[in-house]
Amino acid sequence: MYISKKNIIAGRNPIIEALKQHQAIDKILISKKATGNNIVEIKTLAKENNVPLQYVPAEKINSLTNIQHQGIIAFKSAVQYQNLQQVIDFITEKGDTPLFVILDGITDVRNIGAIARTAVCCGAQAIIIPDKGVGALNEDAVKTSAGALEMIHICRVNSLMKAVDELHLNGIKVYASEMTATTKLFHLNLQDPCAIIMGSEDKGVFAALMKICDEQFSIPMANNFESLNVSVASGMILYEAMKQRCKN
Amino acid sequence: MYISKKNIIAGRNPIIEALKQHQAIDKILISKKATGNNIVEIKTLAKENNVPLQYVPAEKINSLTNIQHQGIIAFKSAVQYQNLQQVIDFITEKGDTPLFVILDGITDVRNIGAIARTAVCCGAQAIIIPDKGVGALNEDAVKTSAGALEMIHICRVNSLMKAVDELHLNGIKVYASEMTATTKLFHLNLQDPCAIIMGSEDKGVFAALMKICDEQFSIPMANNFESLNVSVASGMILYEAMKQRCKN
Repeated sequence: MYISKKNIIAGRNPIIEALKQHQAIDKILISKKATGNNIVEIKTLAKENNVPLQYVPAEKINSLTNIQHQGIIAFKSAVQYQNLQQVIDFITEKGDTPLFVILDGITDVRNIGAIARTAVCCGAQAIIIPDKGVGALNEDAVKTSAGALEMIHICRVNSLMKAVDELHLNGIKVYASEMTATTKLFHLNLQDPCAIIMGSEDKGVFAALMKICDEQFSIPMANNFESLNVSVASGMILYEAMKQRCKN
Repeated sequence: MYISKKNIIAGRNPIIEALKQHQAIDKILISKKATGNNIVEIKTLAKENNVPLQYVPAEKINSLTNIQHQGIIAFKSAVQYQNLQQVIDFITEKGDTPLFVILDGITDVRNIGAIARTAVCCGAQAIIIPDKGVGALNEDAVKTSAGALEMIHICRVNSLMKAVDELHLNGIKVYASEMTATTKLFHLNLQDPCAIIMGSEDKGVFAALMKICDEQFSIPMANNFESLNVSVASGMILYEAMKQRCKN
């Protein structure tokens, strides 16, 4: 990963300030040896802001910046993350019917960009991503999304399981694609508030997450060559949702 | 473009042999100075096999191979091209209803690969490409298609206009996507024999080709952000076709 210097915040006080201002931060690297009161404060603030922390050897941080870093650096994000509950409230208060996309283990930034474009085109209002195991939403991601990542709410959560619970508490159904499911995509009711989990092409949706879904569905296939690209599959699903929600 | 030596056929007789055996050839480069009876024969055979010829300075050919080339080299294709009429006959004799994809100006091999995967998944039987202005169907293309390019008929034609005429003569309707069209994708009858033209993201479908289509349609969009990736748009269209053709 190429890291531009302007994307790094180094040092304890600058990072505390950034967190207090709720600046968009992808992750924070802390030296394993770093101690002190302000480190405790940073950990608390990071948790409150859903920013993942990663403990690394001091040498790792030295290799990334030559600015005085006091054993800690943060990577700025190109995307402003939002709180899931606040987004749900905002959408429903506007009178819109939630249509969300949950990304589970999608690491290819090109796929994330394409899914974001499709989501915006199809009227999805939010993308929910975990704070680990997903491609970084950096400037490249924004570029490949043709700006779509800046036009849709991005909710970063520290657990997709908890996010699904939160969606359920708000009356939002959660569906996941699974090749062997007998329910077909077009059998789903996508007119009501719902969220779709997209898993990675190789691993699919995480098993525990699959279990708490309201329904599993399959995209009908004309033959045994089941090899849809994840962004193409998302396109089919979001097209079906848009079509069901379309007035004419 | 990196060209592996094993993908090159050099010299007049080897190329005549390859053409007589209908080997898959992407294109032939001829030195502007090359003359002789066998050059005339190669031109005739290339025309019969729909293989494009390109006239280049002898230096160009020298830079591509150090084998004795007699002013002419051919690039092997990773895909075996087929005759459109023969493919139509084969499909209809099997009792299948043609569903074809026509690629107009799609140069990105990744998009071609993704479209081929989707086409196979959705039961399309053939992809029609022009002999110029399309990404080379080389080993990279086959790889990005996850093998799909070897599982679907590929018809290469020297004019998409003539190909559309040929489709019409066989009772196959031709549709093209155009953002401003009032007919929506789901209004189309895709259960009958049909072919869909996919244009490039920047230029869309060639105007003259658009004119001879049976109908233009638009993919419904939830808002003004009309920015679907061409492989995602193909996914939506082919999903709609598969859904209409699906029994349950």
